[in-house]
Amino acid sequence: MNSSSSSKTIGIIGLGLIGGSLALDLYQKGHHILGISRAHQSCRRALERKACHQVSSDMELVRGADLIFLCTPIGSIISTLEAILPYVSASTILTDVASVKGVIVEKCSMLCSNFIGGHPMAGNARTGIEAAQYNLFRNAPYVLTPIETTSVESLEVMQDIIAELGAITYISDPYEHDRSVSWISHLPVMVSAALLESVNSKAEPEILELAKNLASSGFRDTTRIGGGNPQLGLMMAQYNQEAILDSLINYQQVLQEITDHIRKQDWISLETILQRAQSNRPDFLRD
Amino acid sequence: MNSSSSSKTIGIIGLGLIGGSLALDLYQKGHHILGISRAHQSCRRALERKACHQVSSDMELVRGADLIFLCTPIGSIISTLEAILPYVSASTILTDVASVKGVIVEKCSMLCSNFIGGHPMAGNARTGIEAAQYNLFRNAPYVLTPIETTSVESLEVMQDIIAELGAITYISDPYEHDRSVSWISHLPVMVSAALLESVNSKAEPEILELAKNLASSGFRDTTRIGGGNPQLGLMMAQYNQEAILDSLINYQQVLQEITDHIRKQDWISLETILQRAQSNRPDFLRD
Repeated sequence: MNSSSSSKTIGIIGLGLIGGSLALDLYQKGHHILGISRAHQSCRRALERKACHQVSSDMELVRGADLIFLCTPIGSIISTLEAILPYVSASTILTDVASVKGVIVEKCSMLCSNFIGGHPMAGNARTGIEAAQYNLFRNAPYVLTPIETTSVESLEVMQDIIAELGAITYISDPYEHDRSVSWISHLPVMVSAALLESVNSKAEPEILELAKNLASSGFRDTTRIGGGNPQLGLMMAQYNQEAILDSLINYQQVLQEITDHIRKQDWISLETILQRAQSNRPDFLRD
Repeated sequence: MNSSSSSKTIGIIGLGLIGGSLALDLYQKGHHILGISRAHQSCRRALERKACHQVSSDMELVRGADLIFLCTPIGSIISTLEAILPYVSASTILTDVASVKGVIVEKCSMLCSNFIGGHPMAGNARTGIEAAQYNLFRNAPYVLTPIETTSVESLEVMQDIIAELGAITYISDPYEHDRSVSWISHLPVMVSAALLESVNSKAEPEILELAKNLASSGFRDTTRIGGGNPQLGLMMAQYNQEAILDSLINYQQVLQEITDHIRKQDWISLETILQRAQSNRPDFLRD
């Protein structure tokens, strides 16, 4: 356990995979961790796992915190922020971990001048405090989305914390963040879900039956994120509607080009696209 | 090494991943393996690796074989079959391993009455005799596509060989096979390649740059097969044009429905599709 010279009091609201994993790492780095969860079981486990020093289901626990992470589901962020405002001083930094930033940053910044949007891009398919783990964020991108009114000091505090987590800071405009994640996260969910839906709803019964028997790793990988938690996909569409529509429309144009090449037997154009896909893909693969 | 009581002389033309892996397993099962490759290096390695008892770049080597596997790239199957016909007796069974069956079976059956189409659904990203491995086909589907004129005896021989490989036999009409693999293998390649092409060609430079930094396992998995060997994707489109066009058009309809739901904020309909994707996906996953 390292006792940092700049030890802070950190509130974490929502002790699921992300909140719990932040708590574990930051506890170990010597910060004083205040955990909030409505579920008593999560509070108890957070203490047992040494993720938090104090826990409560009462928001008042975060009074006096230097920094507060809002780690609730995206639909509860605004109401959670409103609920803790009475216990937040002017110097308290507030941040969130939602995967969409434009709408969230806009609303939260109106409620609190010391809010800075964040998106740690780590996770796995598990949920809850039991899924929380050390080093979840190590080497993962962590996007911060400061706006005009964000203070340099708050930004620096967040960058120090991200460095302690071993994550890699990216600074972005909130809406540019949303357009980027639409391309590499939200659009792929829809593309992948559409694959499952189309074969299930459009293939004739005997073709579908054989397809189910023959499907292997290619189909498994291409459908993985489309077959994930429906609530996450829905949330992406609801909170990032404009960007996801734009990328869907662009995607459909490309798919139509591919279809036209195949229909016209324009194999050279099809091959060019497939070659470009192969040569461009490594740019998207970190390490 | 098991010496089978029904030991056969088996010709394998094309000593790459599939041909080489078939050779390794069938050699070990006690069959006498005759390997053909134009590359002397592949022939030499096939002997060294105990994949073949005899090798040659001359097709005449397969004279007298009970069974011959055509394991060349799909574009060379017909010409290879023509080249070996002088050395094939009426009792010799010919089979191929191509991933498209309709066109191949039609043409090969005209050239040779004892041809039976096959598609072992195994492989990995590697190629060549060095990539060949034991048990590549174990527990994998192996589709046979007999037609009206296929003899019961030939089908039985193939089923016995597939059982020796530890693979699972599926019997299908050649064109129904092609429609099934279009859904679970060929369509996904186009869907996945279109994802790479659209973000690369349609995202603004600064959005693309951030997207590359933020892309993680979701994007990696969804683009894996689209970023694979362009020649394979091209071959799928060329040899399975009708089925792939049909599945592309059906897919586009579903994607348009999803886009419409998002545009109209019809979250209930979107959620229904996402839920169905989640609940249907396990049907496609063999363990």
